Amino acid sequence: MREVYADHAATTFPRHPQVPEAMSSFLLDIGCSPGRGGYRRSLDASRLVYDSRALMAEFFKVPQPEQVVFTPSVTYSLNLLIKGLLQQGDHVIISSMEHNSVVRPLTRLVRERAVTLDVVQCNTDGTLDPLQVKNAINNQTKLVVLTHASNVTGTFLPVHEVGEILKGKDIFYAIDVAQTAGSESLGFGAMNCDYLAFTGHKGLLGPPGIGGLCISERAAEATESLVEGGTGSRSEDENQPGFLPDKFESGTLNVPGIAGLAAGVKLVNELGLETLQKHKRELTAALLLGLAEMPEIEVYGTKNPHTTAATVSINVKGMDNGDLSFMLEQGFGIMTRSGLHCSPLAHRTIGTFPQGTLRFSLGWTNTSSDVEHILSALSEIIREN
Amino acid sequence: MREVYADHAATTFPRHPQVPEAMSSFLLDIGCSPGRGGYRRSLDASRLVYDSRALMAEFFKVPQPEQVVFTPSVTYSLNLLIKGLLQQGDHVIISSMEHNSVVRPLTRLVRERAVTLDVVQCNTDGTLDPLQVKNAINNQTKLVVLTHASNVTGTFLPVHEVGEILKGKDIFYAIDVAQTAGSESLGFGAMNCDYLAFTGHKGLLGPPGIGGLCISERAAEATESLVEGGTGSRSEDENQPGFLPDKFESGTLNVPGIAGLAAGVKLVNELGLETLQKHKRELTAALLLGLAEMPEIEVYGTKNPHTTAATVSINVKGMDNGDLSFMLEQGFGIMTRSGLHCSPLAHRTIGTFPQGTLRFSLGWTNTSSDVEHILSALSEIIREN
Repeated sequence: MREVYADHAATTFPRHPQVPEAMSSFLLDIGCSPGRGGYRRSLDASRLVYDSRALMAEFFKVPQPEQVVFTPSVTYSLNLLIKGLLQQGDHVIISSMEHNSVVRPLTRLVRERAVTLDVVQCNTDGTLDPLQVKNAINNQTKLVVLTHASNVTGTFLPVHEVGEILKGKDIFYAIDVAQTAGSESLGFGAMNCDYLAFTGHKGLLGPPGIGGLCISERAAEATESLVEGGTGSRSEDENQPGFLPDKFESGTLNVPGIAGLAAGVKLVNELGLETLQKHKRELTAALLLGLAEMPEIEVYGTKNPHTTAATVSINVKGMDNGDLSFMLEQGFGIMTRSGLHCSPLAHRTIGTFPQGTLRFSLGWTNTSSDVEHILSALSEIIREN
Repeated sequence: MREVYADHAATTFPRHPQVPEAMSSFLLDIGCSPGRGGYRRSLDASRLVYDSRALMAEFFKVPQPEQVVFTPSVTYSLNLLIKGLLQQGDHVIISSMEHNSVVRPLTRLVRERAVTLDVVQCNTDGTLDPLQVKNAINNQTKLVVLTHASNVTGTFLPVHEVGEILKGKDIFYAIDVAQTAGSESLGFGAMNCDYLAFTGHKGLLGPPGIGGLCISERAAEATESLVEGGTGSRSEDENQPGFLPDKFESGTLNVPGIAGLAAGVKLVNELGLETLQKHKRELTAALLLGLAEMPEIEVYGTKNPHTTAATVSINVKGMDNGDLSFMLEQGFGIMTRSGLHCSPLAHRTIGTFPQGTLRFSLGWTNTSSDVEHILSALSEIIREN
């Protein structure tokens, strides 16, 4: 059966062969650990890591390569900044579209560090009035965390406008670009943020197991590490080094993951960010257009391909979205994800808690024929149920 | 020039091709995220993770597969257990041969949680009298952390004897097997431990970026997570799930890393743990024998291949170990590591702080001819300097 992968918000698929090739090439041709030995192979590994760091810095327009810290995942990046920055009694502002990778660590800090949390309410289409953030600021406000785009509806949050509001204030600003890196142009400086948390295995087309955090100088200083250990630097010191990137990178790095991420980002650069964005918008527009003609289907989000990532959440009247997801795969080879997508707050916001939605998320490997296939499959399922 | 890799304590090299092949095979043939979608490819990824977990449980003789938690590194595993278990005022016992991945997080908790730390003194050859641990126990003792073998001298610590001492006590026991997994037979139950922290890229022959923690049921309950986020389970709950392995595995897993680790462990099983152990002991014995004939060389550790991992630290009288390491590579293609090896405490114990040592660490890909090459290179360097 034909396969149509529509779960790009979970991970990119199919992967370009140059990603595993870059990983194999590191493992077989270089193979050694970076920064730990003085021999050529170790230096080659260090160079690969440095070059990849510089590539990421260029991609996100971060001033210095060492301001890019490699982490195992965007979830780790978010935990690192949340737990590393917030202290007893600090106030935090997040949106009501945030993922559990933001909500769960904060729920813990509310309990353990008496952190106070304001969840600013997004509209039912997932949009947010930036003034909501402004109005929530108080004297204790230490951090604002926003996702660039919801993983449920794809809706963009006004990250640039909030950056303007926070400019010059003594408040740290974190943006989760898990859903937009590799599709949207993201300037670290232009967004006026302190933290940009990314993952390698979605729009950046790399492998799972690698992500990162771009960090401002003031944030690097104010943030404690999440994990301490061997850094290959200042080994004589029983304290973690304070400088970047070593402060936040303990233990042997995931160099095959870094090599795979670099291969993915090079592919994004070759394909062109604008081309990728345009392609995904066209597919999203076609999907939204087709869905709008089916009265049995409720579509969530802005329903506008220019204010949303390539993610569309729906429910079909009278059908369980888990059953629908199953039928789409069994009958038509279409891979989707149903349920809550690890974002209960977002589902409360759009009015789909606790049943959730069926999510289609499109990517660079999808075609307009895939969208037609999805639409005709939905028609057929609705007709027969 | 001939290459002799003698830095297996840092990472395994050269890697068997079946490791990158398993990683590529996951990325290209399965490719999707486990535990997040209900479609076949996602279930295939879940099955790969489950099978790998079961393989690790069998390897370490852990009762249930879910008692094996995958982590990005042994450093992460150690931080997870140390920070997740210890609370205000708890007492901890470690040996004076521990790595910075144990010392640095504890140094932080001494400062932040008023944890009290007893560093029990090892002998100058790195050995430890288990009674030292017994004598250090007090009413506040919550945790004992021991490395199974020093990464500087290879010296085994009496992990089984300490396990006997702690049996039936309300004290948690963690063993760091970074240097011994894949060489020594390690029974989780037989060692009577609560935590066994391992890495994938050394004796287990896998890739860097993946490690794990075997955890007892009581420890799983007593330990807080280090990172919270999406687990694909109980998505409606703003708190981290409390069950294994989800409690400690947030965000998309490093599935290529897990696939590579499983390939490495299968290779260890095929080669045979006893065969690997015997091979490394024979090489270590030959190296120690040759070094004993060179009066200019001081050898640290027990100098007995049966009480040490395949790691030998030396200094040559009148020579800087950094220079020596450089000469060994430049003149003879021998890759070693000089300095403090991220273990300043261990070097203080053996009397080599702050200059450190030159470390040879041997592995399954080394041959007796490699050892002869190392010995003749050392002879030549000493003769000419």
